[in-house]
Amino acid sequence: MDIGFLGMGTMGRPMARNLARAGYDVTVWNRSPGKAADVVDYGASEAPDLADVLHKSVVFSSLADDGAFTESVLSAPSLQAAKQGSVHVNLATVSPGKSGEAEAALSERGIFYVAAPVFGRAEVAEAGQLTVLAAGDPGAIDVVAPMLDVIGRRTWRIGEDPAQANVVKILGNYLIANAIQAMAETTTVAEKVGGSPELLMEIMNDSLFPGGVYQGYGAMIAQRRYEPAGFRLPLGLEDVRLALAQAHAVNVGLPFGSVLEDLFLDALAHGQADQDWSAVTEATRRRAGLP
Amino acid sequence: MDIGFLGMGTMGRPMARNLARAGYDVTVWNRSPGKAADVVDYGASEAPDLADVLHKSVVFSSLADDGAFTESVLSAPSLQAAKQGSVHVNLATVSPGKSGEAEAALSERGIFYVAAPVFGRAEVAEAGQLTVLAAGDPGAIDVVAPMLDVIGRRTWRIGEDPAQANVVKILGNYLIANAIQAMAETTTVAEKVGGSPELLMEIMNDSLFPGGVYQGYGAMIAQRRYEPAGFRLPLGLEDVRLALAQAHAVNVGLPFGSVLEDLFLDALAHGQADQDWSAVTEATRRRAGLP
Amino acid sequence: MDIGFLGMGTMGRPMARNLARAGYDVTVWNRSPGKAADVVDYGASEAPDLADVLHKSVVFSSLADDGAFTESVLSAPSLQAAKQGSVHVNLATVSPGKSGEAEAALSERGIFYVAAPVFGRAEVAEAGQLTVLAAGDPGAIDVVAPMLDVIGRRTWRIGEDPAQANVVKILGNYLIANAIQAMAETTTVAEKVGGSPELLMEIMNDSLFPGGVYQGYGAMIAQRRYEPAGFRLPLGLEDVRLALAQAHAVNVGLPFGSVLEDLFLDALAHGQADQDWSAVTEATRRRAGLP
Amino acid sequence: MDIGFLGMGTMGRPMARNLARAGYDVTVWNRSPGKAADVVDYGASEAPDLADVLHKSVVFSSLADDGAFTESVLSAPSLQAAKQGSVHVNLATVSPGKSGEAEAALSERGIFYVAAPVFGRAEVAEAGQLTVLAAGDPGAIDVVAPMLDVIGRRTWRIGEDPAQANVVKILGNYLIANAIQAMAETTTVAEKVGGSPELLMEIMNDSLFPGGVYQGYGAMIAQRRYEPAGFRLPLGLEDVRLALAQAHAVNVGLPFGSVLEDLFLDALAHGQADQDWSAVTEATRRRAGLP
Repeated sequence: MDIGFLGMGTMGRPMARNLARAGYDVTVWNRSPGKAADVVDYGASEAPDLADVLHKSVVFSSLADDGAFTESVLSAPSLQAAKQGSVHVNLATVSPGKSGEAEAALSERGIFYVAAPVFGRAEVAEAGQLTVLAAGDPGAIDVVAPMLDVIGRRTWRIGEDPAQANVVKILGNYLIANAIQAMAETTTVAEKVGGSPELLMEIMNDSLFPGGVYQGYGAMIAQRRYEPAGFRLPLGLEDVRLALAQAHAVNVGLPFGSVLEDLFLDALAHGQADQDWSAVTEATRRRAGLP
Repeated sequence: MDIGFLGMGTMGRPMARNLARAGYDVTVWNRSPGKAADVVDYGASEAPDLADVLHKSVVFSSLADDGAFTESVLSAPSLQAAKQGSVHVNLATVSPGKSGEAEAALSERGIFYVAAPVFGRAEVAEAGQLTVLAAGDPGAIDVVAPMLDVIGRRTWRIGEDPAQANVVKILGNYLIANAIQAMAETTTVAEKVGGSPELLMEIMNDSLFPGGVYQGYGAMIAQRRYEPAGFRLPLGLEDVRLALAQAHAVNVGLPFGSVLEDLFLDALAHGQADQDWSAVTEATRRRAGLP
Repeated sequence: MDIGFLGMGTMGRPMARNLARAGYDVTVWNRSPGKAADVVDYGASEAPDLADVLHKSVVFSSLADDGAFTESVLSAPSLQAAKQGSVHVNLATVSPGKSGEAEAALSERGIFYVAAPVFGRAEVAEAGQLTVLAAGDPGAIDVVAPMLDVIGRRTWRIGEDPAQANVVKILGNYLIANAIQAMAETTTVAEKVGGSPELLMEIMNDSLFPGGVYQGYGAMIAQRRYEPAGFRLPLGLEDVRLALAQAHAVNVGLPFGSVLEDLFLDALAHGQADQDWSAVTEATRRRAGLP
Repeated sequence: MDIGFLGMGTMGRPMARNLARAGYDVTVWNRSPGKAADVVDYGASEAPDLADVLHKSVVFSSLADDGAFTESVLSAPSLQAAKQGSVHVNLATVSPGKSGEAEAALSERGIFYVAAPVFGRAEVAEAGQLTVLAAGDPGAIDVVAPMLDVIGRRTWRIGEDPAQANVVKILGNYLIANAIQAMAETTTVAEKVGGSPELLMEIMNDSLFPGGVYQGYGAMIAQRRYEPAGFRLPLGLEDVRLALAQAHAVNVGLPFGSVLEDLFLDALAHGQADQDWSAVTEATRRRAGLP
């Protein structure tokens, strides 16, 4: 089956390459060309025009945010060229509202919209081990399921409303942000009382909290190693705000989320925009008078 | 080596039994007698008097809190009978301050004080799979290390100051409380937008957050199954307050901790004292207008 | 001097009437006509068309919010008819960003934009006792100063940037919201310990906190008298959010503001949208288990 | 009537002097002697022994805190000398619990205990313009009412339970702390957007918030003038904690109070212990990246 793939960023590239390597006929496109070399090595072709990609039977997009998705898909004139009955799979973290808007706009043109945000960083994408959260028309998901199996270790079906997949994705990121702050508070206390933040994190990861989130961020926080940024602090703030916006829209206050927002702002007010989002820890440390 | 063991609660009993089963000569004592039947089955003897236990070469205690430890150990007249050079191992979660006080009081009498709080609930204690956090005189820890290996899967050495082990224990419990509230907020949002809290928790546990804390509490929270209480809500509040007190003593504010304290108070104001501490979730749900 | 006046709401009507009574030649307009009877009684005329008002030498507007101001002024085709060198005075609480946009748009057409939000409710407007916060071109403010003196007891000059007047207005409302919550917390404690919230508020108003805010809201809160709403709860939330948005835009966290936002959401989740914003008190009471 | 007066601090001295000036036969005592010169000038005598004061018909005390009151009154051996039917008036800010304890202890000895904490600083005490909050046996309050009228401009009767007067006093101080933080947040935003914190505070005091609290602290905050301290920051933290403790004891969370506690801790972690409690503002400024 012919696949179009939009977006050759740090996540899009490995996902597209894995699809090409699995034998799919993949045509990729990126706003700024020349980013797709290693995907092409695996047999994909790079399209000069967006239209060449948007008329494929299945189109994946992995674009930066709501704005990029609107520009390159929803408002793209070449969307007119899209095939009736084709499936658009949005792998990016967009707001649930944007997914709702996309479904309405695409279904009007006879295109199925599947939201399929993923958990996992670039290395996990390379290894084809992402966790995929798919929501949308069940038949459309059936069509793309084998492809999602190439991209990830497991696909969860979240329901027929695409927005629900985005909600799960946002809440997952929100849980990570909460874990980061919980570790920030505990390591700060540990250091202030003369203990070892690193030992604390090692013990926690070995006993109560196994898994990559506590291990990876725990080590970064304990060692205050925030660069190079795996996920930049302003993006982290954006994710916290997506969770807050979603919650506030249904009259739910998130007290932890509001605390997080303030700590991220504190970090930005102290010039930490280029650090990893786990560097929000420094706000807690500063308030405690640590150097 | 002859071992005394104080406290036949839900944690003390399985730990003492495992020591007896491993062949140690264990004498147990409990304030209200008759709780030690299954320990005696494994060859331990039950002492009628506290003094019979306090003069052993190694004395373990697993008592409810600071107050019980003070009464049955620090202020006990029979402490006079304790052996010079004996080792007292406190397995309970007491405040770091109480550990400091204990070390001072016992070392005056020639007794080594080892703080050895544990991670794990009753089932884990049964299985001898606790995580042990030991701090105190290194030689004294060497003496009791084989016994701690019977009780737990792994012993972490936290240093020479007993209070540091209590700090790690308190911070570990604090991390659990934070994870509970993070799950409370996310499941509340999920339910309000028409999603499935159970599916959300299942996905999180499968992907970002493996391990028993997120799995066990995640399921309890998603299903709102808070009884019977594994750890009662007022005890959870006490643990949060131990963390707050420790942090405040060194001029560290814990914004998440203050939010937690308020939510626990909200739960108590709504008659939830007999529920599991994960039931603090209900405060978040009520505020969101959920039934 | 000929004056146009847009917006015959609870605030606009008394302000326009006071200008007419003072002898100014006032022409009023309201989106839905027939609201200006008592203003006309004092000699004003009601214009059928927006254009009749927008071309006056001085135009005041007192419209509901950013949206209404944009529709009836900034995007109004009849703005073309506006006089070179005329002055537009915006008496409403709009966001600082909207004031910036207005100044840019109007100055392009040769119109001076003065932001002049006011403190005071309808009764205060009736009495011509508002506090006026004026910012914009100093010469333009000089022109309208006598009119502002008719409307209010005192005009503060905030500077040349109109947005600064809106910032002061927003921060003033934010201070009121904070005072409301402080009173909510203290009256809730007073009631829980068997004291009298009313006596507490009376004492505070007589000693530490004179003035209408503590007196008026203090009595409403102590007596739980939230209807009829002087200022509806959702509008209160909007004002808190204006303050949060302004603060966040410059990387300032407002911890009190975030708490307020959550309490307002709690109130909305409990169906309090038609009550006065001081009814946010009920969220604090509910959390404390009060009926 | 013969009056004893304990405590020649900044508040006790002017109150005792006003009583002497009004013609009362006043005998004063202070732990460290020689502080009463100006009171003696007005006809009072200074007693060398605590016992000389404790056996008077009416005894006022104005001591630093719970501890000083316990030491110099409740646990004082010379309390045995106290007169049956005499009245003890405690003018200090003690915890409600301490008042309860005092009433029980003194009534056993046939002494009436009246709690009479006051609002107002030293200058207000000099002028005899304090606000007095009196609670206790109505007959006993009748006896001392003329004296309280000398000390203050107005005496509020809070009821028969002395602790209730302390609750009102604590909640009043808590309202001040809240106003301080509200002003801290608004002045910080004002400064960050290029406005004038001083003008902001002046406008607020002139319009929405008349009275000494907003005027005095508003000016100190806007000018960042925190020394000499009228009320030291650690004492401010103690007052916030009295409110928190009172609220928590009845399962009421105070979200603003928890935020305040953290900000005071932040200030202490940054070496601000000798500044006025309004200097807690600096924590908000630092977080916002202001110098």
